[in-house]
Amino acid sequence: MASVQNDKADDRDYPLEQWYCAGFSEEAGEKPLARTICDRQIVFYRKQDGALAALTDRCPHRKAPLSLGLVTGDNIECPFHGMLFSPQGTCLNIPSQEKIPPAAHIRSFPVEERHGHIWIWMGLGRPDHALIPDMHWMVDPALTAVHGSLELGCNYLTALDNLLDDTHLSFVHRNTIGTPKIVQAKIEIEGDDDWVGFTRWTLDTPPSALHAKAGGFTTNVDRWFNVRFVKPGTVLIDVGSAPIGTGAPEGDRSRGIGLFSNHTVTPATSGTCHYFWHAARDFSLGDAELSENMRQHMVATFIEDKDIVEAVQHNRECDRENLPELNLSGDVVTLRARRIIAGLIQRESYVGQSQVA
Amino acid sequence: MASVQNDKADDRDYPLEQWYCAGFSEEAGEKPLARTICDRQIVFYRKQDGALAALTDRCPHRKAPLSLGLVTGDNIECPFHGMLFSPQGTCLNIPSQEKIPPAAHIRSFPVEERHGHIWIWMGLGRPDHALIPDMHWMVDPALTAVHGSLELGCNYLTALDNLLDDTHLSFVHRNTIGTPKIVQAKIEIEGDDDWVGFTRWTLDTPPSALHAKAGGFTTNVDRWFNVRFVKPGTVLIDVGSAPIGTGAPEGDRSRGIGLFSNHTVTPATSGTCHYFWHAARDFSLGDAELSENMRQHMVATFIEDKDIVEAVQHNRECDRENLPELNLSGDVVTLRARRIIAGLIQRESYVGQSQVA
Amino acid sequence: MASVQNDKADDRDYPLEQWYCAGFSEEAGEKPLARTICDRQIVFYRKQDGALAALTDRCPHRKAPLSLGLVTGDNIECPFHGMLFSPQGTCLNIPSQEKIPPAAHIRSFPVEERHGHIWIWMGLGRPDHALIPDMHWMVDPALTAVHGSLELGCNYLTALDNLLDDTHLSFVHRNTIGTPKIVQAKIEIEGDDDWVGFTRWTLDTPPSALHAKAGGFTTNVDRWFNVRFVKPGTVLIDVGSAPIGTGAPEGDRSRGIGLFSNHTVTPATSGTCHYFWHAARDFSLGDAELSENMRQHMVATFIEDKDIVEAVQHNRECDRENLPELNLSGDVVTLRARRIIAGLIQRESYVGQSQVA
Repeated sequence: MASVQNDKADDRDYPLEQWYCAGFSEEAGEKPLARTICDRQIVFYRKQDGALAALTDRCPHRKAPLSLGLVTGDNIECPFHGMLFSPQGTCLNIPSQEKIPPAAHIRSFPVEERHGHIWIWMGLGRPDHALIPDMHWMVDPALTAVHGSLELGCNYLTALDNLLDDTHLSFVHRNTIGTPKIVQAKIEIEGDDDWVGFTRWTLDTPPSALHAKAGGFTTNVDRWFNVRFVKPGTVLIDVGSAPIGTGAPEGDRSRGIGLFSNHTVTPATSGTCHYFWHAARDFSLGDAELSENMRQHMVATFIEDKDIVEAVQHNRECDRENLPELNLSGDVVTLRARRIIAGLIQRESYVGQSQVA
Repeated sequence: MASVQNDKADDRDYPLEQWYCAGFSEEAGEKPLARTICDRQIVFYRKQDGALAALTDRCPHRKAPLSLGLVTGDNIECPFHGMLFSPQGTCLNIPSQEKIPPAAHIRSFPVEERHGHIWIWMGLGRPDHALIPDMHWMVDPALTAVHGSLELGCNYLTALDNLLDDTHLSFVHRNTIGTPKIVQAKIEIEGDDDWVGFTRWTLDTPPSALHAKAGGFTTNVDRWFNVRFVKPGTVLIDVGSAPIGTGAPEGDRSRGIGLFSNHTVTPATSGTCHYFWHAARDFSLGDAELSENMRQHMVATFIEDKDIVEAVQHNRECDRENLPELNLSGDVVTLRARRIIAGLIQRESYVGQSQVA
Repeated sequence: MASVQNDKADDRDYPLEQWYCAGFSEEAGEKPLARTICDRQIVFYRKQDGALAALTDRCPHRKAPLSLGLVTGDNIECPFHGMLFSPQGTCLNIPSQEKIPPAAHIRSFPVEERHGHIWIWMGLGRPDHALIPDMHWMVDPALTAVHGSLELGCNYLTALDNLLDDTHLSFVHRNTIGTPKIVQAKIEIEGDDDWVGFTRWTLDTPPSALHAKAGGFTTNVDRWFNVRFVKPGTVLIDVGSAPIGTGAPEGDRSRGIGLFSNHTVTPATSGTCHYFWHAARDFSLGDAELSENMRQHMVATFIEDKDIVEAVQHNRECDRENLPELNLSGDVVTLRARRIIAGLIQRESYVGQSQVA
């Protein structure tokens, strides 16, 4: 038994009692999947029934990564000296000796697959499965989806800021999806201590090229942009257009088209994070060529984001003066999201507890 | 308003109240030029009248580098959220809000182009334009010049030492411009608290291959080697040969040939610096083939310098014993230059001041 | 004269009063050989009589690496300003001045070649030549040998652990030299405060493919595995097989075949080490094709080791929890070797001494 992780709680900027996205289901196949999440090395592997196990990726003997070892039935074998661990982290076999000491144990993590994503609970408390973000639209047969991931060389909060602040579209994505109008339209903010979101309507405006073609629009449209932050690292975005006068602002989207996307960032180290995205449309279902076009278009767009957030990370790290950053009114949503995250961290008091790390 | 940079004054080894060379004029074209100078990230861009602006390359909002943004008229736009800054660092526009807070300001730096070089004043005090090193020979129609630059993986003082100590020529440049004789000839040192230089005459000696060919010399020559340190990072070198008995040592160079060069090093970080060089000749004017040959020859020579100064930097960094270095009589000029620099730093007292960084 | 290296004694994990292997004799040819040993940069070069000199690879003037300089007769010249050093580290010439100050001196190290290996004594005390590990079998005309080296990205103790613990063979080398049986056979440990070794016999077992072919065995064999740690970084391994009933366990190997190998690791930095190996056989002497096959086979096997020890090093460095490691009964030999090394370090009291570093 070792003391809890709370000795470093002060300098971490992520909550631990949360579900974090570790990847897409297809990433955990026959070989174990190694991934760093919240500064911890984790190995994921599939048991015989197809369910996932998640363990600390570090043998208690000489700290070799189990992810380089073999999966044997429901268990995983250390690649160095063959110690065998169950999905619960219990050592089942030590080849060079008969007795298994109690310390021959590693931490296991609650893991769940839902809607094509792998989720891991990083906390010590009981996992609340209701907290896993709802991404059911990703497996909805009435929608057609594409997805992908990127490793970002920046802190996860910087990536999250970027996702929650659509005023960057007019500048970072000037040559792709941005238009000068976006930044000028008013937004309506909703939320409480637990979530935050906003809606931005651009009324009676010419449709974008993609929307015009997909929706067959011949008139101006009303465009919506709904963004919602789901703790600790997911942003759900619902965008679309409908011809003016067909009632979209009042709630009738039946004449319009929409794109539903989720974007999840997971802290890896203080200067790196994982970014997983998934986007589904309610038009041109099953059109594989359109799907591939959209996928390529989104990757190109997200690489524009990657370039700027990594430049920001670098510029923060080499900032000698280290001046406090200036907040703008466009930051109101990102600041609320950051307050929600700060509150989660603050409420995680591990004092006096202990665990098998 | 933030406190001044003097909190780190103790560990910096460069003066700030000085002009530093940031590059050649042609490097600042349509795109902004990003360069690290004295541990500070700077962006240079051209205004509509062609003059240069120099700003801290870090938006006060989220620290994104302005150098990735667009130049619009006289101003530069942040690539992240479109904040627009004037050449004075004043924010002129924040797309997502109407009011511009006073803190929406970045530091601007005095910048001047002279003789094909860009100079930036890194201090807080009033810039003294008379301190910009005189390199008028670089634009003198009676001379033909070549130039170039290198990024060096060493502290700027190591590069400066190397430029001021010509005794390394016989060893580092054994296979290029060095001859064993150089190190043996006596030098005459001049200078005061503000500058230092030396002259080395090698009398009645066979001409070098280059000089013999260029000058058409058929007899022995008198060779001169004049070196002058101009604070904080420039070395001016005047070398040449004239047939013996034609009065060169007494001041009459009319029968000889000469090469005038300036070498400027600018601190980037503690372990890196920029090196800019420029060399003009008073013979074979306009001979483009000779110019290209000389340029290639000088690049090859300076790469020999780069190899040794970077090896020295590495060897200092990994020196466990960290013994004090032994000074030789050949170091007399470099030590005087270092004392001049140390004096400049010491006189820079920022106590009690403040600035917009 | 400078204070001794003992200020850092507390955090080093290698003894200094020992011989360390610096390479193979053929590595020190016409050009100087630069190698980092025990965190110290060393240059090796051959004198006119072919014997080796070993000096601190750092000029006392500006710390340039002598290994980039020229060897002149018995001496080596600094590549920067031409200071000339004898094999004893005495400065013989300073081109730019006549007087040679007493501080113009660098540390020289006792160096000896034996059995194709270069050995350097890193201590301040008198070198004990009897401590150089005996590898005479490497130059024995009755044996045929192959050898090689690898740079490992791990602490030398991790590499040493791996060499002394043969229970990793069944896992790390599952696809090459390992068999599941190895880990199950009992071992017999010998040793004292100065050395440790073990013997593992696998009796009446089918021969390995290599042994069966090389020895022409048609029956089961008795296999031996003798491992001996020689301080500070050498492991001698003697493996072989003989047909059952021919008396091998009692000492008569005349009907069997054997492979003698030595494996030496030398600390470079805290996270890197050099690994030198050498293996000789007493069968199929002079068969060049078999030698090349064996060499390739051993390199492939050692790269499996390299992969795992470097993964362990990485996993230790990024271990946030930093839990103590669990020892197993299979570690008994490696723990005794570590105790021997720890004892050597502890007995090295440099208090009150001084040296030319």
